[in-house]
Amino acid sequence: MIYELYYWPGIQGRGEFVRLALEQAGTHYVDVAQDVGGEGTAIEKLERVLDRCGSPYPPYALPVLRAGDLVIAQTANILLYLGPRHGLAPADESGRLWAHQLQLTIMDWVSEIHDTHHPLGPTLHYEDQKAAARKRTTEFLRHRLPKFLGYFETVLERKPTGGGHLVGRALTYVDLSLFQAVDGLRYAFPRAMKKNGETYPLVSALHDRVAKGDRIAAYLASGRRVAFNENGIFRHYPELDAS
Amino acid sequence: MIYELYYWPGIQGRGEFVRLALEQAGTHYVDVAQDVGGEGTAIEKLERVLDRCGSPYPPYALPVLRAGDLVIAQTANILLYLGPRHGLAPADESGRLWAHQLQLTIMDWVSEIHDTHHPLGPTLHYEDQKAAARKRTTEFLRHRLPKFLGYFETVLERKPTGGGHLVGRALTYVDLSLFQAVDGLRYAFPRAMKKNGETYPLVSALHDRVAKGDRIAAYLASGRRVAFNENGIFRHYPELDAS
Repeated sequence: MIYELYYWPGIQGRGEFVRLALEQAGTHYVDVAQDVGGEGTAIEKLERVLDRCGSPYPPYALPVLRAGDLVIAQTANILLYLGPRHGLAPADESGRLWAHQLQLTIMDWVSEIHDTHHPLGPTLHYEDQKAAARKRTTEFLRHRLPKFLGYFETVLERKPTGGGHLVGRALTYVDLSLFQAVDGLRYAFPRAMKKNGETYPLVSALHDRVAKGDRIAAYLASGRRVAFNENGIFRHYPELDAS
Repeated sequence: MIYELYYWPGIQGRGEFVRLALEQAGTHYVDVAQDVGGEGTAIEKLERVLDRCGSPYPPYALPVLRAGDLVIAQTANILLYLGPRHGLAPADESGRLWAHQLQLTIMDWVSEIHDTHHPLGPTLHYEDQKAAARKRTTEFLRHRLPKFLGYFETVLERKPTGGGHLVGRALTYVDLSLFQAVDGLRYAFPRAMKKNGETYPLVSALHDRVAKGDRIAAYLASGRRVAFNENGIFRHYPELDAS
């Protein structure tokens, strides 16, 4: 079976959490964003999967993974499906629930990161909410960023089998997602993250180790990795970064 | 096994989505918020489960469900666990993924509803962000509320087995959660929801039918149902409701 990943072209967005899992799995997949017909054709296909011509299982939003007859949406739900099929999640139920719990916490964090530049909601442009973005980002960098980083640092510190991975003894999709969150934060808030990197050494080390894994390193160096930019979740607006 | 639900006293919050499932399941559970020792003792117990004395599986936030040795956090994750054990989710994997996908979409919606009164983040009081709340709520009521309601209306319209429930032929935890979202929205935005009720009749009907189910009706009439108030997710600030 060849998976099809449906996500907007030109940004990493939430699709990137799925893409990293597919790359680490070493599985064949079609990335609709890279459609040979170009961006116009890709967007037509995306609009079609979103409406799905009257399908009884319409997704609310992208990313969507098509796996044979299954059409799965919601990032964490897609990873819940992929994890055990590709050795990227624990085999037992309690381990899978724990991995999924961490993933949902990362997704909450990602939403808060998005909202630093869109505190008044997704329907207005950044330019129309710059003052509010500044206030929200100040609060985020002061309180929320250390709380999330500190949480994952604690999870790594307390690991009975050592802090090399968040869950169990092997790499899981949760490690890939934490890598992505930290990678995006380093892009968006280089000054704030430089300070935090020293305070949360295990999280930083996990990021760096994931980036050096054979398959992920190859992916990051490839043309398939879209560069961070100011249309995605992680945006570098120097006026928002810590002073 | 007797479940223990850990959630803050005095508000429905995200804990309510779990509480509704436990009530519908007709299972015995201990609600720590209703601890006989009073609010002080409850909060001590909640703080303890959040830190869990060095446990390798600390939750990031409440609600938390203790089920024997398992300590599960993240609302949708708890429902993923409870659903198949209590006949509140489909038996097959594709049905469960679909139910979970809808639940995650409801949780995203709930976060947006929360942010109408807290657009600058959870670290500031409402009183310190009233102007921003007004802007965010205007956008929410104009664009996001119809989009979410319209989505669930579409899912109900397209149901091959009839629109009585969101998933399959029987009541699931997703119906209970949609009931709770609509119930909270009717409390928070009575004027806006009055208009929307006519536009989304299947969603409204589902809400009303869930409220009349034997177990849920008994629960709603009991002292166990905390009243909506201005400390929770769904807050009625008349200045924010549609004019």
